Order: sequence, then structure tokens, then C-alpha cells
Amino acid sequence: MGARIDGRGAADLRLVTIERDVLDHAEGSCTIRFGKTWVMCAASVEDRQPGWLRGTESGWVTAEYSMLPRSTHTRTQREVERGRPGGRTQEISRLIGRSMRGVVNLELLGQRTVTIDCDVLQADGGTRTASITGGYVALAIALNKLIAADKISPSTLQSQVAAVSVGLVKEQPHLDLCYEEDSTAGVDFNVVMTGEDDFVEVQGTAEGKPFSRSQMDELMDLARAGITELFERQQAALEKS
Amino acid sequence: MGARIDGRGAADLRLVTIERDVLDHAEGSCTIRFGKTWVMCAASVEDRQPGWLRGTESGWVTAEYSMLPRSTHTRTQREVERGRPGGRTQEISRLIGRSMRGVVNLELLGQRTVTIDCDVLQADGGTRTASITGGYVALAIALNKLIAADKISPSTLQSQVAAVSVGLVKEQPHLDLCYEEDSTAGVDFNVVMTGEDDFVEVQGTAEGKPFSRSQMDELMDLARAGITELFERQQAALEKS
Amino acid sequence: MGARIDGRGAADLRLVTIERDVLDHAEGSCTIRFGKTWVMCAASVEDRQPGWLRGTESGWVTAEYSMLPRSTHTRTQREVERGRPGGRTQEISRLIGRSMRGVVNLELLGQRTVTIDCDVLQADGGTRTASITGGYVALAIALNKLIAADKISPSTLQSQVAAVSVGLVKEQPHLDLCYEEDSTAGVDFNVVMTGEDDFVEVQGTAEGKPFSRSQMDELMDLARAGITELFERQQAALEKS
Amino acid sequence: MGARIDGRGAADLRLVTIERDVLDHAEGSCTIRFGKTWVMCAASVEDRQPGWLRGTESGWVTAEYSMLPRSTHTRTQREVERGRPGGRTQEISRLIGRSMRGVVNLELLGQRTVTIDCDVLQADGGTRTASITGGYVALAIALNKLIAADKISPSTLQSQVAAVSVGLVKEQPHLDLCYEEDSTAGVDFNVVMTGEDDFVEVQGTAEGKPFSRSQMDELMDLARAGITELFERQQAALEKS
Amino acid sequence: MGARIDGRGAADLRLVTIERDVLDHAEGSCTIRFGKTWVMCAASVEDRQPGWLRGTESGWVTAEYSMLPRSTHTRTQREVERGRPGGRTQEISRLIGRSMRGVVNLELLGQRTVTIDCDVLQADGGTRTASITGGYVALAIALNKLIAADKISPSTLQSQVAAVSVGLVKEQPHLDLCYEEDSTAGVDFNVVMTGEDDFVEVQGTAEGKPFSRSQMDELMDLARAGITELFERQQAALEKS
Amino acid sequence: MGARIDGRGAADLRLVTIERDVLDHAEGSCTIRFGKTWVMCAASVEDRQPGWLRGTESGWVTAEYSMLPRSTHTRTQREVERGRPGGRTQEISRLIGRSMRGVVNLELLGQRTVTIDCDVLQADGGTRTASITGGYVALAIALNKLIAADKISPSTLQSQVAAVSVGLVKEQPHLDLCYEEDSTAGVDFNVVMTGEDDFVEVQGTAEGKPFSRSQMDELMDLARAGITELFERQQAALEKS
Repeated sequence: MGARIDGRGAADLRLVTIERDVLDHAEGSCTIRFGKTWVMCAASVEDRQPGWLRGTESGWVTAEYSMLPRSTHTRTQREVERGRPGGRTQEISRLIGRSMRGVVNLELLGQRTVTIDCDVLQADGGTRTASITGGYVALAIALNKLIAADKISPSTLQSQVAAVSVGLVKEQPHLDLCYEEDSTAGVDFNVVMTGEDDFVEVQGTAEGKPFSRSQMDELMDLARAGITELFERQQAALEKS
Repeated sequence: MGARIDGRGAADLRLVTIERDVLDHAEGSCTIRFGKTWVMCAASVEDRQPGWLRGTESGWVTAEYSMLPRSTHTRTQREVERGRPGGRTQEISRLIGRSMRGVVNLELLGQRTVTIDCDVLQADGGTRTASITGGYVALAIALNKLIAADKISPSTLQSQVAAVSVGLVKEQPHLDLCYEEDSTAGVDFNVVMTGEDDFVEVQGTAEGKPFSRSQMDELMDLARAGITELFERQQAALEKS
Repeated sequence: MGARIDGRGAADLRLVTIERDVLDHAEGSCTIRFGKTWVMCAASVEDRQPGWLRGTESGWVTAEYSMLPRSTHTRTQREVERGRPGGRTQEISRLIGRSMRGVVNLELLGQRTVTIDCDVLQADGGTRTASITGGYVALAIALNKLIAADKISPSTLQSQVAAVSVGLVKEQPHLDLCYEEDSTAGVDFNVVMTGEDDFVEVQGTAEGKPFSRSQMDELMDLARAGITELFERQQAALEKS
Repeated sequence: MGARIDGRGAADLRLVTIERDVLDHAEGSCTIRFGKTWVMCAASVEDRQPGWLRGTESGWVTAEYSMLPRSTHTRTQREVERGRPGGRTQEISRLIGRSMRGVVNLELLGQRTVTIDCDVLQADGGTRTASITGGYVALAIALNKLIAADKISPSTLQSQVAAVSVGLVKEQPHLDLCYEEDSTAGVDFNVVMTGEDDFVEVQGTAEGKPFSRSQMDELMDLARAGITELFERQQAALEKS
Repeated sequence: MGARIDGRGAADLRLVTIERDVLDHAEGSCTIRFGKTWVMCAASVEDRQPGWLRGTESGWVTAEYSMLPRSTHTRTQREVERGRPGGRTQEISRLIGRSMRGVVNLELLGQRTVTIDCDVLQADGGTRTASITGGYVALAIALNKLIAADKISPSTLQSQVAAVSVGLVKEQPHLDLCYEEDSTAGVDFNVVMTGEDDFVEVQGTAEGKPFSRSQMDELMDLARAGITELFERQQAALEKS
Repeated sequence: MGARIDGRGAADLRLVTIERDVLDHAEGSCTIRFGKTWVMCAASVEDRQPGWLRGTESGWVTAEYSMLPRSTHTRTQREVERGRPGGRTQEISRLIGRSMRGVVNLELLGQRTVTIDCDVLQADGGTRTASITGGYVALAIALNKLIAADKISPSTLQSQVAAVSVGLVKEQPHLDLCYEEDSTAGVDFNVVMTGEDDFVEVQGTAEGKPFSRSQMDELMDLARAGITELFERQQAALEKS
């Protein structure tokens, strides 16, 4: 098993950079890069509940994912021109939202809605995992402001959350697939974990040949190692301020 | 750990019944019941490729999932009235499609499109897993006709595919959750496997508390056992004709 | 004038079967078959008025009609994919709704909305008349429950309602056209009548040659006879419980 | 049975005026008034078939109906703002189209599409019957130009077509209902007839109490008399040029 | 620089005719013609504010512009069929609305909404300027009724407003371009002015060669002269009653 | 007339920064900042004409403008969720497109389409003028590559183009309004000019009090000075490479 397209080893992440506070209006924001993948993450806090929570003390955390038309190798038509978000877009938005909710105590959040917008500026594989990893940083910045202002309890943010993709490329497990690897991978997993090494989401798909239980186990190990590293990058970014 | 709402043990499937050839026009069809969950599955074969395959010899298998408005406990508005399929609908349609493609050799299928329509007549949890399990039966009927007519090779259908849900209810692993269990489950997995005991899809979500690696392992074991049983039901239905 | 495609005489209905209580959640339900035409009918009762009745004591009865994609000879695209219900779908939904309202005292119904969903599982001509005939059965089951629970007066359901198609095939009057007859019929009527032999709706269309007053009279006679027979099938189904 | 709101007898039409050639671009056009109801009718001839006729020698005649937002007593929202034509709009468009096709030999029309646009400038009941009656005038002007230019046979336009509403107001038959009458009528018929006194369409609806066969007969007689008069107005307008 | 297509001089308006009170239901209405361009203008007064003004004493004036499908040389598809108003339609609707608001004191209007509907019956260039010029007449009729009924102050309508197009055709300034001129003009301005000779809107576009400051000055002079003439036509129409 | 909110003089631009080549896939790209306003501009070159140019040798330049949901002070709903781009979005997209076409020789461009995507990352007034100014940089980078590759003539890009806003704030002319100034400005102009000091577009709107000819003249002078400065910033960015 030789070097990868970009020279990495099979268990290496791409270069990860997180720049916080890039937006003036948003309550929390960052840009995150996983190699050439580049996502703008913004957390917006609103003092209102979604309609279906009315009558409770609970808040909500939701997410919306979108790709700029020229984030892709060739230009992609804007979804607004087709009149609706595509299936993939909605699927990823829902995944990001669930991941964020996995580490927030919604009752402690109070009657608020936090929306995490993840807009992909450039796509090179792993846009959903970068979105979750960066979305957490934006979320944490926003919640930390509320905590600092004594509006919510410090226990509202219960843990850290990050995500990475792993897959079988030529039958071998690889971490953090770039677009070219992803499009040839036989099996592709997105794994979302919390700071306690527990899982929020595991989504594995065999694009070609189905995968065995032992292959799945190997991939889980690889993912955990990658996510541990991402937790450090998140911490470093959050400590800068 | 006592009996479940409906008296089953934690590792028991609900009553599964598959009735084949319920439609006169469709190339393949069945209704499938997982307890009160009831889905109409129809396979339509068309002698044309989707546009993006033009120029190749390959065919395509796709799926569409939908719920009748009164399949649910209280009536649900039709999605056509909102002008577009919801995120959940698209997500499940895509999952069924990928599951079917996991056992079909698209090149051997030739320049054809097979569409698997799964319309939920009644919903009581597990509609997506029932759809995959019944969808396979409709698919197999349709492909077997093409094979019998010498239009495609017998190798086109490469394996069997079925799906089941497993989850942690009160921290304990349970097989084939009904709606009431599903809505209180802390963790919910949908598992799709082939006749070779390999995975096509694994989708696990922590609705509440994140789950550990060992919990995941237990759930996978339970799913495998359930799917093995579903394979037998599919075989029995297909052999009836 | 010889026998018809399926051996029937010109004044014969196809085989009509009604199976009641097929759904667990719906307040009233049945499947109805007119030959190969097969419709799922569900009545949903909600304790709220439509907005435009607010301030009155009246209720409302409405209907929605839809065809499953593979109810037809070749697969039909789902209307949700085109973003809106087609003209024919809306026209039939409105017809079913008016027919149901023709036998319900909306003031006695109180501040409730009853929605009759007619989803065509298989289409072979006469889907709208089967929907009305089966829709009445679902409606009656639902209203009878409200009557039994003393929530509404027994006079709320004022009469029976059923519908049949009649048409000129090769210039001769025929009852209850199947798809193949319908597509060659020069004139096509849908007639909706109440238990008192009065009309709720008469819709006649010359697809080809216009029709004369005396032809119309003949067709009305034929329709009346057919509907009388349908009333008996409805009664039989309702009495089974 | 005293005089009507506007002083007419029960068997009287409102004042009917037809002004032809009001548009410079359209191949045929007129404005038609039934009392205060006022409709712009335009016939557009295009040298192309609809897609589904390709491969045949046939043409097609279709229609689109719409109401200006302030044609109504109080302003009505434009349907484009809701994203789609409403059910009533589509139903009427289809009725006008069928009525026009009832008097056109589509094979003699050749590979052309004629679109009849009926835009209601002001509505006071009977907009669909005025649209059909005026639509015929626009259609005839357009086809007569093609005939004069030797592009189609004079037999292409096979007959005249006009429409009128009749209804039971306080149980009595009335011709050509205005809005106020229409909104209190128990039974409402729209009748479309050809120059040979044959029917193209009969659509009768009981809004309240169902109607008997003999009431229907009376209404048909009234409609025929009204339509005979409308034929004369159409002729007079067409002869003016 | 010889005579124009229709014989006019470069500084001449086309024949302008305004017919007021053409609609029975609308609070104010007129048809306006600029040559063959023909627009129906209707003002609707509603006793409610738009949602975003709630809590204030202010009213609002808005406008909607649309073209009938056969207002154009060849038939144009209805925008409702595409599911949404096009960019040009929205742009013109917004321009008309701003122009009307330029002469109305919204606070004196009180908690009312006035909607100006401009529906183009026939298009031959200058539809937006005819719409503004006719829209003002409809607006003034409606507001004058409110003033006469002592519901609003006479100062609510602060000035007159009218609009005209000017452009460079073969590098020469021309007033009130017809369609054929407009489609060959290198530069096209729409100018909206008030009775005080002040500007509400200036919109100039170089379709081909950019224009100089001195060309712009010449065009402004030409527009002012044309608008002065339009003010007289508006006055004449308003005085007729 | 004292200093402005941000300390600038009335005739000062905000800090303008342009960073080129920020995207790897796009043929041309930059981010541009006018103070806190921040726009991502991407030029995509495709070797195909829009349908309506088929049969000619011409190419096309078009633009699409959009705002990220949290570019604004409080979060704005994505337009895709409403199913269509709003009127303002379409208006600005069209303006940017026309501005770009004002400096491109479309025949020399050949059978190509260039799409300029301007996605607003942060909005603080002047997003459309920043989009045009940055859009030109992205366009020039893309065309220069085609020129360098000998695919198009150096004359294809005929001039430079940039835009700035000017307005009357408290009756005084101000250059390059930020959001707070813009929302209180009585008159607001967007001016687009070419390198020859000619105009491509002039759009002036009186939000409150109409403006006089001499005020317009003053604003044009101010705009010209600002645009001259923007031309230098564009040049500087383009020379960096």
C-alpha cells in the first residue's frame, strides 16, 4: 500500500486549519479547511423556539448545509434554481443538526434556536465531516458567549463533537478521503463521535462490493484515531480567541 | 428486561408476511407487513437508461418511497401539497435505491431502468427496512422474468438483500422496533445486509445519549440474526409464485 | 352488439368487492375494487374546522385523490416530483369532495373536518367512481363511530352516495367502462347519485362526436341501474363490520 | 317567480357583447361580455405539435384560463405567487380546451397548436361559459385566416360551439346566472353545445339539495334556448370583420 | 435623422389614451395606451397593513406587473406554469411600487394597503412606463374616493408621477421607444418624475456601447419634456370622471 | 457635515481589499471587501452556448448573486427554502450580468458561457457594487487564461468595469454607503462605469424625497471619482498574480 494521491499515509488526516471569528454579525463563526475542502460555518442564536416546541422549556439546534455553485470541479446549478434543496443537501443538513444536538442539552439551552449554517466554499471530499467539525467550533463560540453572559448554564454544551470519513480504497482502509479517493472508494463511512469516544452517528455505505464485519471494525478504529486528532484542532482554535 | 409492548422478546421480529404479485401491471410487486407496518412494493422495468448513463452499456436501479397520508396515526399532509418531497422521504428513497443496487450487476442489466416504488399503506415503525425487504422481492420477481425471457444473464441479480432496524430501548438492544419503541429508543440502527452476511449499509443514530463501540457490536449481532430470518421469508414468498 | 372485452353485457358492472377496516389508524377505511381498479379509501376525522369556516358551527368534508406511480400500465411520474398535483388530480379530488358533502349535513357535523383520501393502488378505468363509492363507505364508518359515541346526530349522514361511469362505445351505451373501453369511448359520463335517486353530479364529455339529448337520456337510465346495484354492495360491506 | 336581481326574466340572457380583433399580435381575438363579466380571448397559432403528437399528422387545440387579480369583488392573490394554478383554474382550462376540440378536426388542422387564452378582466358569474363562447370567436377568426390562406381545409372547423350556465335558484330554473345568483343557486349546470344542437359537455353539480331527473330535463331545455341565442351573437360578431 | 418607424419625430410621444373607471369592482382603474402598448391598471384598497408594518400607523402601496400570454408578438408561456414570476416581472413590479410610494404619504394613508395591478393586454415597448403612468391614474381615483369620504387627508397624495422611456437609437436620442426601436437601441433609460420635476427613479442601461455623461444629459432633457406631456394626459383623464 | 459613522469623509471609499485566486477549481476567482462587506466572486467558463444563441458564433456572460444566510445582521432564510430567488436577488444578478457584458465582446468570446457567481459572505451595504467590482477581477482572470492559451483574442475583454454606490445622506452626497447609511439615505444610486469613463448602468432611486437634476449631477461626479479609485485596486490585484 503506497502513498496516496497527495502523499499522505493511509491513516493521515489532510492539513486541517480552523480560523475562528471570521464573521462580524454571527454569534459564532469559523472557516475550516480539510485540505482543499473549505467550509464557512456560522452559528446564529435566536430567542425563539421552533413552533413544535412551544409550551416547553426546550430550545433547538438545527443546521443547513449548502454548496456554492463553483465549490465543485465544474460549476453546479444552484438548488434555488430547481426550486428545492436536493436529497443529498437535506440528508447532510439533517446529519449536521443531529450531530450538534448530540452534545447540547436542549433543556438547558432554554427557549432559543441555534442554527448552524455550513456553506461549502470549495469541495474536495469530506464536506460533511468538515462541516460537523467546524460547525462545532461555531456552536461552541456562540454558546460560550451565552455562558459568559450568564444566560445559560455551562453544562449546556455537554461534550465535544467531530467527524471524519473513512473508506476502503482498493480494499484498504483510508482516513479522510479526498474527492478523487472518495469517488473510487468501494466503501465509505462517515463517523461522528463525542469527546467521550462514543458515537453520535455511524453511516456506512458500500458503493460497490459489500463489506464484512471485520472491515467495519478496522474502519471504526481508524476513524476514532482521526477524530481524536480533530478534537485537538478544535481545542486549539477555541483557545486562540 | 420484561416483554415488549406487543409481547415479543427483545430478539424477536414482528410477524412478517409477504404477498407477491398483487399488481397486474407492474413487472414485479408484493405487499409486505412487519406487524402493522404495511408497504406496497412495485418494480417497474423500462427499456431506457437515465440520461447520465447514455453512451454506456449500463442500466440503473432506483427507488422512490412515499407514505399515504393516512398511513400515520394522525393524518399527514401529502408532500405534493408542499411542492416537494421532504428530507426524510428523499433520504429513505436514496437508501432503498443504494440497497437494491448493492445486489444488482448494473452492466449485466443492460440499458434498462428498474424503479422500485415503496408506498407505505400503514406505518408502525420500520417502514424503510420493510421497504428494502419487500423491494427486493419485487425486484427479484421483475428480474427473474427478464432472466426467464433470456433478456438478461442470471448473474444480474448477485445476491439477496434485506434490512432490519435494531435499537437501544432503555439501554437494552431490541430487534425490529415498532413505532412506540422507536420513538423512545435512545439509539436506532438500520442495517442492510446481503445473503453473504456482508453489509450494504449501516446507519446508526444516537437520538439521545451517544453509544459505545460495544453497544454497537451487540446491535450488529442482533441485526444479523433478524436479517437471516427475513431472507427465509423472502425465499418462501419468491418460491410460491 | 356482442360481448365486451371481459365478457360482460353492456349493462353489467364489473366485479365489485369492498373490504372494510383495512387500516388500523384511520377512523374509517376500505379497499374497493371495480374489476382490476383498486382503491384504498381512508376517512380521517379531525376536531378542527378549515380556517374559512371559523366563527361558524359548521364542519367540512374534503377529499384528496392520487394514483400510486405503478397503478398504471406503464409507470407514471409522481406528481410531487413535478411540484404540484396535476389538473386531472385536482379535478377528481374536488368531485369526490362535493359528492361526499352532498350527503352530509355540515352543520350537524360540528367543528370537525373529515378528509377522504382515495389512493389508487391499481387503475383500470373508473378510478373516480370507485373512489366515490368506496369513499362513502369509509365516510360512513367514521361517522357511524361518532354517532355511536353520541358526538354527532344520526341525521348527520343524510343519504347514501355512489357513482358509476357510463359511455357510448361504438355508439352503444355501456355501463362501468374499463380502461380499454374508456379510451375508445366517444362519450363518457360520470354520474353521482344519492339513495333517493337524485343527482349530486352529472359530468358528460364528448371525446369525439357530440352526443344528442336522447343518447344522454339512455345513459342516465343505465347509470341509475348501476348505482342502485352499488348501493347494495355498500350496504353489504357496512353491515359486515 | 318575480323578476331577477337585474330585472331579467328567468329565461333571459344578460346583455352579450362581442368585440372582435381587439389585439394586433394574436391570430384571432375578441373581448366578450356577459353583463359585467368581461373576458379577453386570444387565439395563438403555432406551427408545432405538442410533443406527444410527434409522428402523427394531427394538430392540437388547448386553452388556458386565468383571472386578473382585481377581476373579483375583492382582490384575489395571483396564482403565480402561490407557485401553481389552482384546481378551479385548471378544471376550467381543460373544459375550454375540450369544448374547442369538440368542433375542430385535429387531423385537418395539421401539425399546428392553437392555444386559446381566456383572461377574465372582470368576473360576475359565468366566466367559463363566456370564455367558451368568446373563445370560439377567437378560434374561428384564427382558423378562417388559415383557410383564406389555403393552409387548411374549410372543413377543419366543423361546427359552432357556445356555452351557458343554468341553475336552480329557489328551486326555479334560471338561465345565465350572475355571481349573486350563482352563489345562492342550489344546482348549477354548465352546458356546452354545438351548432347541431348536440352536447360537447354537460356538467351539473348540486351545491345543496340533490336534483331530480325532471329538474335536469327542464334545465337542459333552458340551456338549449340560451345557446341558440349565443350562436347568433357569435355569427354577428364574425360577420362584422 | 429621418422620421421614425411610425412617422413620429424623435421627441414625440406615441398616441396616449387613458380611459378611466373601466372596472366595476376596483376602487380605481383605467386602461392606458402608449401606441399599441395597452395596460389595464387597477387600484385595490384594503383595510389592513402588511405584517411588517404592524404596530405602526403607516400604510403601504405596492404593485404587481404581469403580461397576458398573448400580449407579445408570439405567445409567451404564463409565469404560473414555471412556478414563479420571472426576474424581469419582479423588477418591474418593484419599480412601479416605488414610483407610487414616491408620491404617497404613507403615514397619512393610515393602516391600509393599496395594490396597483398592471396587467399588460398588449406589449409594444414601454410597458413599464405606461404602467406607472396609468397606475398613477388608478391610484389617484382610489385615493380621491377616500379623500371624498373623509377617510384620509387630501395631503396623502403629494404629487403626480409619470414615466417615460428614452434611448439612443443609432446614437440619437429618442423619446418613448416602441418595441422595434427598443430592441435596437444601444442605450435605454426609464425615467420616473414627479409633478415638481424631480426624479423618483432613473434607470439607464447600455445594451451595447456605454454612454457618456453628455448623452445622459440630453436624454434627461428629452424625458422631462415627455413626462410633462404625460402629466397633462393624466390630468385630463382624472378630470373627466 | 461631520465625519461619517466610521470616520470617513463624504467622498471616501471604505477600505477595499481584493484577494485573487482563492479557489482552486474556478477559472477565475477573488474575494473582495468593501469595509465589512465581503463577497466571493467566481468565474466559470463552459464550452457551450445558452440554447437561444445556438446557430450563432456568439458566447454569453451571465451572473448569479446570492447572500449566505448569516451574511446579514440577523439570519435570513435561504431562498431555496422559499422555492425561488427573490425579486431583489434576481434584479442584482441581472445587473451584474449586464455590467460584465458591457465590457466583453461576445462574438469574440466564441461559443462559450462565462458565469460570474457572487456569493455574499458578509453584507454591510454595497454588496452589488462590490460584486460587480470583484466580478470583473474574476472575469478578467478567466479571460486572460483563455487569451494566454490563444483560445480567444486579446480584444475580447474590451475595457475595465467597476461600480460604486452614492447617495444623499441628510441631503448631502456621500460615496460608498455602508448599511447604516444606506438605510437612512433619502436617495441611493448605483453607478457602473467602464475604463473610458462611460456609463454601463445608472440606477437611482428616491427612497423618500425625490431628487433634483443638480443633485443627480453632484452624485455622478462623486461616483466617477470613486470608480476611478476602484479601477486602480482592480489593476493592482490583477497584476499580483
